[in-house]
This record gives sequence, C-alpha cells and structure tokens, in this order.
Amino acid sequence: MRVLVIGAAGMVGGKLVRRLVADGALNGQPIDGLILADRVAPEAPANAPFGVAAEAVDLAAEGVADRLVAARPEVIFHLAAIVSGEAESDFDKGYRTNLDGTRDLFEAIRRVGGGYRPRVVFTSSVAVFGAPFPDSIGDEFFQTPLTSYGTQKAIGELLLADFTRKGFIDGIGIRLPTICVRPGRPNLAASGFFSNIIREPLAGEEAVLPVGEDARHTHASPRSAVGFLMHAAGLDGAAVGPRRNLTMPGVSVTVGEQIATLGAVAGDNVVRRIRRQPDETIIRIVAGWPERFSPGRALALGFRAEASFAEIVRIHIDDELGGTWVR
Amino acid sequence: MRVLVIGAAGMVGGKLVRRLVADGALNGQPIDGLILADRVAPEAPANAPFGVAAEAVDLAAEGVADRLVAARPEVIFHLAAIVSGEAESDFDKGYRTNLDGTRDLFEAIRRVGGGYRPRVVFTSSVAVFGAPFPDSIGDEFFQTPLTSYGTQKAIGELLLADFTRKGFIDGIGIRLPTICVRPGRPNLAASGFFSNIIREPLAGEEAVLPVGEDARHTHASPRSAVGFLMHAAGLDGAAVGPRRNLTMPGVSVTVGEQIATLGAVAGDNVVRRIRRQPDETIIRIVAGWPERFSPGRALALGFRAEASFAEIVRIHIDDELGGTWVR
Repeated sequence: MRVLVIGAAGMVGGKLVRRLVADGALNGQPIDGLILADRVAPEAPANAPFGVAAEAVDLAAEGVADRLVAARPEVIFHLAAIVSGEAESDFDKGYRTNLDGTRDLFEAIRRVGGGYRPRVVFTSSVAVFGAPFPDSIGDEFFQTPLTSYGTQKAIGELLLADFTRKGFIDGIGIRLPTICVRPGRPNLAASGFFSNIIREPLAGEEAVLPVGEDARHTHASPRSAVGFLMHAAGLDGAAVGPRRNLTMPGVSVTVGEQIATLGAVAGDNVVRRIRRQPDETIIRIVAGWPERFSPGRALALGFRAEASFAEIVRIHIDDELGGTWVR
Repeated sequence: MRVLVIGAAGMVGGKLVRRLVADGALNGQPIDGLILADRVAPEAPANAPFGVAAEAVDLAAEGVADRLVAARPEVIFHLAAIVSGEAESDFDKGYRTNLDGTRDLFEAIRRVGGGYRPRVVFTSSVAVFGAPFPDSIGDEFFQTPLTSYGTQKAIGELLLADFTRKGFIDGIGIRLPTICVRPGRPNLAASGFFSNIIREPLAGEEAVLPVGEDARHTHASPRSAVGFLMHAAGLDGAAVGPRRNLTMPGVSVTVGEQIATLGAVAGDNVVRRIRRQPDETIIRIVAGWPERFSPGRALALGFRAEASFAEIVRIHIDDELGGTWVR
C-alpha cells in the first residue's frame, strides 16, 4: 500500500506521518511507500520501515498533481491549504491553492485512469458554515461561509462529492473542529487563545485571554485529528453514501469550562498564569463562530473525539510534555 | 443604464430581453444599451428604443468575459449554462462553462476595478439539492447535489457570495424551480412531461404522461421566472445580507392536480389528450427530485410566483396561445 500525504509539513500532517510510520500499516495493510508533499519539504521520518519520498511542491503548478499520483497511491491524504487569514488577505493565492490545487489533484487522479480510484481524505473545516447559527449545527445545515477559506473548502467538498459520484475518486471530506491544544508557540490566529490558555500556563508561561469566559467553542485534540484521518482512510464508501462530507465530533465547552478543567487537572497555580485582557476585535470574530455541532453521521460512522475537555488537556500533557508540566 | 444578458438565446433569456425592451427601463432607470450574449447569437429585438449588441461567445474562452464587461454594464444577468443532461454526459464541458465561465465572469468584473461593482443576477437551480429531502426544503437545507450540473450551480453560488462579500461584485443568486409551461416542442428532458401534459393538449396534440398522478413537483411560469430576474436586479443588497442565494417560490402540485386544473380551465376534452404510459426510468428520476420548498426568505424579500396552478395554465394560454386553445 502506497500512501500520499499532501500538506505533510503541517502540524496535523506531521503527526499523521509519525502515526503511519509507527503503525507501518494503514487499513490493515502494510505500507510499502510513503510520499510526502508540502510547500516546504516535509521532514522525512528517519526510522520508517518503508521508503519515504519527501518533496516541496506547488500543488497548483502545472503537472505537479500528475507527478504526485503517478505512483498510484491507494490512499491520499489531502491536508494542504492556505489558511484562513492568508486566504482572506491574498484572495488569488487562496483560490489558487485551495480551489485550483484541490481540483487539479482530483483531475490528475481522473487522468490516471485504468480503474485507479484511490481513497482521498480531504480536510475541510467548520469554516464552511457562516453565522447566524442554530444552537447546534446539525448534519443538514447549509454552507454559507463568511471567509474565502471557508468558501474554498465548501467548493472542495462539492468537487470531492461529484468526482466521487462519477467514479473518478473515492473521497471522504472531514470537517475538522478547532484543534486544541495546538503545540508550538502562540500564533496570531484569532482562534489561537483557545490553545494558548492551556499550553502556555502548563509550560510556566503567561497566556492572554482576549474573550469572556462564556465564549463557547468545539475542540478536538491533535490526536483525534489524526484518528479522524486514519478512520476516514478505511471507511466503507457504500456506508457513507453520496454525502461524502462529514462534520467531525468534538468537545463543546465554554472558555470558563476550559479554565476550570485546566485547574482541576493541573492545579490553581497553573490557572493563575492566564491574564484577562479583552480584545474587542477578537471578541467580535469569535462571536461569529459556531459553538456546537450535532455530528450524528460521523458518530454513526465510528468517528470518535474526546469525551471531555479534561481528556484534551491530558493528551497534550502526555503527547507534548512527556507527562508533566510546570506546577 | 447598460444591461448585459448572458444566455440571452435561451427561453427565459429571450423573454427577459423582450421584457427589458418593452419596459425600456430597469430598476426605475431608462436603459440606454443592451448587450446580449449566448453560445449562438441571440436574436436582437427589432423594436428596441436603445442600442442592442448581440454576439455569439464562448464565455469560458480567454478574454471573452473581459470584453463583455468592458462597457461596465450596471446590471448583468448571467443565465448561461450547459444544462443538466449535457453537463452529466460531458463532464469537462459542464465544468468549463458552468464553473470556469462563471468564475471568469466574476474575475473579469473584479479586474475592471475603479469601483465598478455591478449587480449580477445569477440563475441557479434547485438541482443544488440532492435527495433524500425533508417534506419541504427550507432556506437552511444543505446543498448535496446529485448531478454535475447541480454541483456547478452550487459552486457558482459560493463564488457569487464570496465575490460579493469581498466587494468585487454585487451578486444575487436565484434558484429557479421547474419552469412550467415551457413553450415550444416536447424535449427529451426527464422533466419535460410536466409542461408537455399541459401545452400539447391545449394545442390539440396528444401528450404522454410517464409518471403516476401522485408525483409532486414545484413549478413557476416563464413569466414568474422573468419577474424573479427583474426583482433580483433591483433588490437592496443590504436587505439580503451575506446569504446571497435564494430559493424562489413556486406552486407545489401533484400531477393529478395539474391534470384536474387543466380540465377545470380548458375542459375535459383537452384532458383526454393525455395518454398514460408509465416509464420506469423517468419514474425513478422524478422520485429523486424535490417536491416542495419553504422559500421564506425569497417571499420576505418580495419575490412572487403564481398562487395556483390554474394561474400557470392561464398564463400559458395568454402569453403563448393568444388567449385561446384547441377545445
């Protein structure tokens, strides 16, 4: 089984690659080749029990998608995207990578022909939804994105479903909730604080909370994100049916509940490292985001996230901090 | 006010052009120039009180969209599309015209710059929806098209909303229900019989009914379709908000109700010209179509269709048959 990971240099992509290397198998079949692609060359894992090719590519450039699928990988993880903020500030760049790059990939697979019909796992986003929302977003809620990124992801979903229906690819789109706790340094994303207020205090650093404690949001751990991808790779397409894009589960909590959980898991000293500094811009942006989902289809198909925010905190401590933290 | 009609050679496009010529104005402003475009050269109305340019174009060809918008028309009606059956049988042609052509148009408008931000009225379709459906499709039901045509229209809607949100165009997308009674000869479209069973008997001809009388469907007259377009041209964008794509109203009736209405309006002799000849293929296709809509937003914004199927029959008699029929 050959596996292609596009967007392998990202946080989730990197974790997926490490999981594939650790498992040495996917869908119960041994992996005998892994192709990694991203805008910057992904780090090839040193200890892989199979061949790994890593390359820096521009997915939307002529011929690139054809080259990536030439080895006929049975499973393709397509995680590559210009992220929300950049797609909003650079309209052409976002459409080029997120729409044209995705379409090029699907067309390249179609061009291979000869019965080649790989499973394509495409990471979409809850950004396909746009406010106002119902209390909880169900599986049949419509897509009215309020960003170019969300628009491009929604178009990718439509293309994935149509190319699948026509028998050109065998796609599954998974809409990821906010990934928490993101490892690494604080970044400028408006959503960054959801992770910052957990990660930084556990590392002995101060974190800024720009919104009120009643702000509600849905989270899944990086480990769950990798689990979603692995599960999507092995799903029976017939069981999914023609509606190939699925909202993933997550844990819906308020910021206040996040903080209380952090205290319960790691102690009050850690919580005291959170500094409240309201930011009206971020408060307004976050107010336009979905708070809660009812992902009945994904659950019925066996996708699983954490059952509580405490689990999310403990996964961060285990996976990123070696089981301990700055008390 | 300059007006551009793309898809002006089609049935609805032709009626729109005749209405614009008859009114001599749009949105309360006199029209001083009309540009008509289609794959085949549209017929330029002879009696127009303003200049009319008509040309045969391939909207997706390099530079065509730029040329069409060069005169900076204040209102653009974009009705051009490869229809459902052809988009399904010729995948590349459908995507080229319905997706690339639409995107090219929006990009060409954006390239004009200098504050140019025309009202673009885009005809979408209820084909953006895919079975299974609720009893009635509400304004927040999701888009899971089951045809390439429906996929391309759903993508056009997303692009329209995003280009509008970014201030590049001022778009309104209208999802047309089935247009009934279509004038002209019977065609091979699976939906053709909805019109055939009214039009042909009124003309003294036999019509074939391939489905059962309990089949339910939603219809609006060609006159309503033109009315939707004209109303969309004048809508206040702020009142519409960011959700720029609207399901149009129509009359939901069973085939049995269609036939009973035809009898009540035109007499039993006319009804006797309908011959029942069940066609399992058409029965299956029609069973996958939406039956009813709850287009609350369009109604609140002032879009109006007929109130009864009798009105639809009478409009056909008035507009196409000079007020009479073969008794």
